Amino acid sequence: MEIKPFITLVGAGPGDPELISLKGVKAIADADVILYDALVNEELLDYAKPECTKIYVGKRAERLSTSQDYINQLLVDYALTHGHVVRLKGGDPFVFGRGGEEIDYARRFDIPTAVVPGISSSIGLTGLQQIPLTYRGISDSFWVITGATSSGQLSQDIYTAVQTTATVVVLMGYGKLAEIAALYQQHGRGDLPIALIQHGSLPTEKITLGRIDSIVEQAQANRIGVPALIVIGEVVAKHEAFAKLKEELAQQQVGSL
Amino acid sequence: MEIKPFITLVGAGPGDPELISLKGVKAIADADVILYDALVNEELLDYAKPECTKIYVGKRAERLSTSQDYINQLLVDYALTHGHVVRLKGGDPFVFGRGGEEIDYARRFDIPTAVVPGISSSIGLTGLQQIPLTYRGISDSFWVITGATSSGQLSQDIYTAVQTTATVVVLMGYGKLAEIAALYQQHGRGDLPIALIQHGSLPTEKITLGRIDSIVEQAQANRIGVPALIVIGEVVAKHEAFAKLKEELAQQQVGSL
Repeated sequence: MEIKPFITLVGAGPGDPELISLKGVKAIADADVILYDALVNEELLDYAKPECTKIYVGKRAERLSTSQDYINQLLVDYALTHGHVVRLKGGDPFVFGRGGEEIDYARRFDIPTAVVPGISSSIGLTGLQQIPLTYRGISDSFWVITGATSSGQLSQDIYTAVQTTATVVVLMGYGKLAEIAALYQQHGRGDLPIALIQHGSLPTEKITLGRIDSIVEQAQANRIGVPALIVIGEVVAKHEAFAKLKEELAQQQVGSL
Repeated sequence: MEIKPFITLVGAGPGDPELISLKGVKAIADADVILYDALVNEELLDYAKPECTKIYVGKRAERLSTSQDYINQLLVDYALTHGHVVRLKGGDPFVFGRGGEEIDYARRFDIPTAVVPGISSSIGLTGLQQIPLTYRGISDSFWVITGATSSGQLSQDIYTAVQTTATVVVLMGYGKLAEIAALYQQHGRGDLPIALIQHGSLPTEKITLGRIDSIVEQAQANRIGVPALIVIGEVVAKHEAFAKLKEELAQQQVGSL
């Protein structure tokens, strides 16, 4: 049988296996080979054909960039030898997923590509927590920024974002939480609501709500760890538990008078 | 039978009915009443129970804000009288969907709520066109901004965004394209790649790729109309057809020497 090389990048969504799209499930069911990430829920592999080859290519942000080269090569090699390769990625393939590099590499070999978008954790995990990313009169926009730039430094975009009313979502930035909080404090925004969401959409989900000024202590007290998403902005106060938190803080202030 | 009021906001995705999540389909199948928007694909209503009441509440951006009050009231009234109401919204419920206002209103009546996130057109339509919103070394972030602020003016955020390397996505902003292009030109960024996507993910999809300097003319020539999404940033040049466009432009320049 003639091999027809084809690569589809599929967004698996933020964790809960029911948050993949119908189209994503169809692509998995059609795949001859699946290359999947650390953040992909392995239950999704059950949609694959029995003869499908499933390969784990999870890598951590801190690894050498050569591992991306290795994945690119695997994608192309398997497409040429097996046919339809699905690259199954956590969230959406183009939201810090390095999907663009994979598409570029496939094109060098004239392998046709397709993308099935996914629910990015930036939108999905905040949504499940009923934190609206935008809200009339509060926030006209949201800005999604990586905490893991290629330089290892905080993105220049965060320095700009701190001066706006945009809702800011930082992905892969939990290790830089103290640095980000200090930046907001330097701009007189220590009072701004912030949420940390770990293992969002999964049974192990944990959320910490607070304000910039005390978030680092709260995160330690609540034992929040990676991977965690950071959301900063007035819209965070729309979370149902935040009103209760405000009352508690008000009472503490009355108590200290 | 006792009525258990419950409201679920469901993101229907950007247009293609296969871009809804499995969880979204389940919510529709469980609904006693569905209130759906203009941008929702009506094929999705086929997942509903035969006895489900389906109500179209599409409104145009230019309508009076009272129509949102009317929808809020309908949501609550139907939940109290019928049980599970699904509010089916285009894209994601919290990306300019005014979902936050609906949740707030439901809470006033102590009606429990849930949110099923959706693929926002900001991420999904760019993804389907293989425009990566982020790309190492090109863009550390993407910023999604409404073109339809409550004041009717361009959002202040666009004035800031023009000074950054963030990929900028403007939703509901096609009517302000000339104003946005002029702003980028004032900042010396007329050369920046831009894409317009109309009816994204549907059989009628149209895309126009170009640079800020000539986009208004191109949009007119290609008869792009609302609703259309605007994407601005160097990542737009990663679109497969953009390389061809660059060659054509280079040839035109050689020809004019």
